[in-house]
Amino acid sequence: MLLLNLDRNADEPLFSQIITQLKKMIQKGVLVSGEELPSSRALAAHLGVNRTTIYRAYEELWAQGYIDSHTGARSVVRNRFSPPEEVEGQSHATVDWSIQRNEGCNRGLSRLKSQEIVNDAASKYNFLPLAPDPDFMPVQAFRKSLNFVLNREGNTLLGYGDPHGNLSLREFIASQMRQHCMTISVDEILLTNGSQGSLDLLLRLFIEPGDTIVVEAPTYSAAIPLFEAYGARLVSIGVEPDGMNLDRLEAVLKTDKPKLVYSMPNFQNPTGITTCQAHRERLLSLCADHKVALVEDGFEEDMKYFGKAVLPVKSMDRQGIVFYLGTFSKILFPGLRVGWIAASIAAIDDLTALKKISSISSNSLNEAALAHFCGQGHYERHVKRAHRIYRRRMQAALKALREYLPAEYGAVREPRGGYTIWIELKGCNLDEGGIIEALSEAGVSVTPGRISFVETQESASFRLSISMLEAVEITEGIRIIGNTLRDLAIKHRPPAALNAAPNSGKPDD
Amino acid sequence: MLLLNLDRNADEPLFSQIITQLKKMIQKGVLVSGEELPSSRALAAHLGVNRTTIYRAYEELWAQGYIDSHTGARSVVRNRFSPPEEVEGQSHATVDWSIQRNEGCNRGLSRLKSQEIVNDAASKYNFLPLAPDPDFMPVQAFRKSLNFVLNREGNTLLGYGDPHGNLSLREFIASQMRQHCMTISVDEILLTNGSQGSLDLLLRLFIEPGDTIVVEAPTYSAAIPLFEAYGARLVSIGVEPDGMNLDRLEAVLKTDKPKLVYSMPNFQNPTGITTCQAHRERLLSLCADHKVALVEDGFEEDMKYFGKAVLPVKSMDRQGIVFYLGTFSKILFPGLRVGWIAASIAAIDDLTALKKISSISSNSLNEAALAHFCGQGHYERHVKRAHRIYRRRMQAALKALREYLPAEYGAVREPRGGYTIWIELKGCNLDEGGIIEALSEAGVSVTPGRISFVETQESASFRLSISMLEAVEITEGIRIIGNTLRDLAIKHRPPAALNAAPNSGKPDD
Repeated sequence: MLLLNLDRNADEPLFSQIITQLKKMIQKGVLVSGEELPSSRALAAHLGVNRTTIYRAYEELWAQGYIDSHTGARSVVRNRFSPPEEVEGQSHATVDWSIQRNEGCNRGLSRLKSQEIVNDAASKYNFLPLAPDPDFMPVQAFRKSLNFVLNREGNTLLGYGDPHGNLSLREFIASQMRQHCMTISVDEILLTNGSQGSLDLLLRLFIEPGDTIVVEAPTYSAAIPLFEAYGARLVSIGVEPDGMNLDRLEAVLKTDKPKLVYSMPNFQNPTGITTCQAHRERLLSLCADHKVALVEDGFEEDMKYFGKAVLPVKSMDRQGIVFYLGTFSKILFPGLRVGWIAASIAAIDDLTALKKISSISSNSLNEAALAHFCGQGHYERHVKRAHRIYRRRMQAALKALREYLPAEYGAVREPRGGYTIWIELKGCNLDEGGIIEALSEAGVSVTPGRISFVETQESASFRLSISMLEAVEITEGIRIIGNTLRDLAIKHRPPAALNAAPNSGKPDD
Repeated sequence: MLLLNLDRNADEPLFSQIITQLKKMIQKGVLVSGEELPSSRALAAHLGVNRTTIYRAYEELWAQGYIDSHTGARSVVRNRFSPPEEVEGQSHATVDWSIQRNEGCNRGLSRLKSQEIVNDAASKYNFLPLAPDPDFMPVQAFRKSLNFVLNREGNTLLGYGDPHGNLSLREFIASQMRQHCMTISVDEILLTNGSQGSLDLLLRLFIEPGDTIVVEAPTYSAAIPLFEAYGARLVSIGVEPDGMNLDRLEAVLKTDKPKLVYSMPNFQNPTGITTCQAHRERLLSLCADHKVALVEDGFEEDMKYFGKAVLPVKSMDRQGIVFYLGTFSKILFPGLRVGWIAASIAAIDDLTALKKISSISSNSLNEAALAHFCGQGHYERHVKRAHRIYRRRMQAALKALREYLPAEYGAVREPRGGYTIWIELKGCNLDEGGIIEALSEAGVSVTPGRISFVETQESASFRLSISMLEAVEITEGIRIIGNTLRDLAIKHRPPAALNAAPNSGKPDD
């Protein structure tokens, strides 16, 4: 009979002591493969324990693969599989899967890595985050909406939902879009996992590795690795004071046959540029003429503070050329991940099927709560409040820039809305990395321009987002930026320039 | 001066009347491109309205592209872009984007279409949905957790979150996995948008169009279009009473060099089969020997009702061969879309970066609420309750099948847990579609077997899910299934057989 020592005073239950000891005996070869164990009845009697204790131990040993057992027969020690690490003196390294990575994925991952920036949370003047200020989020109103819908239909909302997305929320979105002169039915709207989710679905629909996508230079930095992960070839077209160079686009449409053109007509990220009506009309005409899908990213459509509204390209689209992307993330709750695509019904049907294929359904609960929240008028109220808050911040930033930014870099283009201001240091011989570092040392965090370019950029540049700072902080932060740039310029002035400076005016000749 | 007729008693505001009339004049060519409009001051005086009314109308006309305006100069009628539909007598059809679809996407979409089944909501005995019964969801406990976390940190939770996923929830998951003998750290867990989201990330990482994935036949139906949308070539290996045929897998690993092997060791969907320890060991060995990633879908790990637990393959994995998928969707709230991948740290790092690339962050609020819910012990309590409920339903189903299913089809394999039972009508000459239709007419909805096969299947088959029906409904539904099958068999018996029947026994020779 087996030699087991049970300690009835130990904390470890008896069945567990039996397991531990039998396992050791098997591991050490005291019990060998094929050997029969005593019947549970016999072992129970021998040890003076209840028979179910033995049952339980044998079951567990079976589950862990130490013994085989068949009804009516005695349990038998198994010829056990040895996971590599259990072989002493031999170490089995973890498999390196990176060599098996998909090619596009490799590109996307290394792009993402190249975009990494130091996000110093301790930075006093943080101009990095392009997201609404959490201090002004209407959390309690949203919490009430969540409770309302959970009490009304929690069981349904916590089940699988319709991949098309909550109908009431699509109705609200359609009514919002009508305010921007886009006549869109609920069937032409698909709710997505935020704007990134919208882009992702469009790429699934259109892009094969090697296909071309036209982007602006600079463009939304987070779109670049996503496009590249799909194996897309990116052709970037410079953004000029009135938007993407359309002559160049026309040429590219002819030569490169792109699958998509990706553009942000309002408060472009990162430049803050808003294109005019004429630019939008020509952009649409060009895409229509070449039957190329135009992705209009209206990520901050509602965030206009100054001057006149320009209508979205989508409002002029009668042929379903435009895939319009909207989102709640830049004005309300980024964490909810609710965005949408507006496009022709046939395209929305395809995209809905793709969403079903890749994620079964969206988050019904969040969508329903958001629909209730909007239906109660909270969205409009919040937008008005947000306008007041961010207009003040934007005004403070623009005033400070006029006052403190060294004049040699020229005037800053003043955005009509949104959160971002683009500083391009034209004709400056300073290194962008050096500028970012010096600013960081002075307590100011800004987004380096380079991450928004697919290829190389012409001048050092950086982006300021005014969304997270109070007006006084913005003013002080920009004052520091101005001083830092001035100090850097003096430090890096070429020796010739330094010598020449006192004799400014005519040389001696 | 312009001839405008303003009606001061109309509901339409004055500025809007001005816009409407000016637009008409431009559209009709009364005002032509390049023509100057009166200054706002002059027009205001002429019409006897406030100057801001004219301002507002001009701004809107500018926004809609009817006029150009520059500071200090008079507004000018624009050479307006005509959206195609506005040209009378000419209709411009919506662009058909389907011809530009990605090749894999085409395959995925047509597979999805081929899987469409009639989901008759009015069906009295609905054995279709593989999801927890909404009547037993602990909605109120979850609602409390939501309120708790929103009150504690709503501002943060509604902002962008960590793509890696909520730490407390990962800690809870790690502790759950330890109960299944998987020793996993929080850094080896990535939270995803449900199991479908997990699969999607794995495909992004590994699959190029043309790569091979090994699946079971039958397999999880919703995985098929997803795999195909990535352009994968699927090799399916038959599931036998003890699981996927591993001799065949060994051969395929050698000849087809797959990138992934996808398997559900517990309560396989749709067959309900649970593999034994020895099968799991060999499966792991084979994948390790060929350095092929093994995707272990543990979608119902916690749902064992009968007999002994078998340890997950992941519990034996020392080399990071296994990518283990877990989910809350089959036991708690499918609508929250929270699942996870457990894999080696390096692989999780890559997958986290891919998640960031494709969706920025996960839903922080839902994850935090779920973490709080689990931390309060609600998960364990709910699992216990779910076991009682579904065990009773499964027992009722198995009893009814023994009683009512025609004996000629052999005994049904009895699952040890989960929700699904697989009925394979071996040697039956009935058409699967005909069976499904006849059942549907009798008020019973079942999932046709064909949607779970990549290629053709051997016999007519269908899946029953017992999750949504009460025990008495299950019994009655299965009684109807038995009767329907019997009736069909009689109706479709070949004439020869009908003639032969009375003379059963020895033929006349």
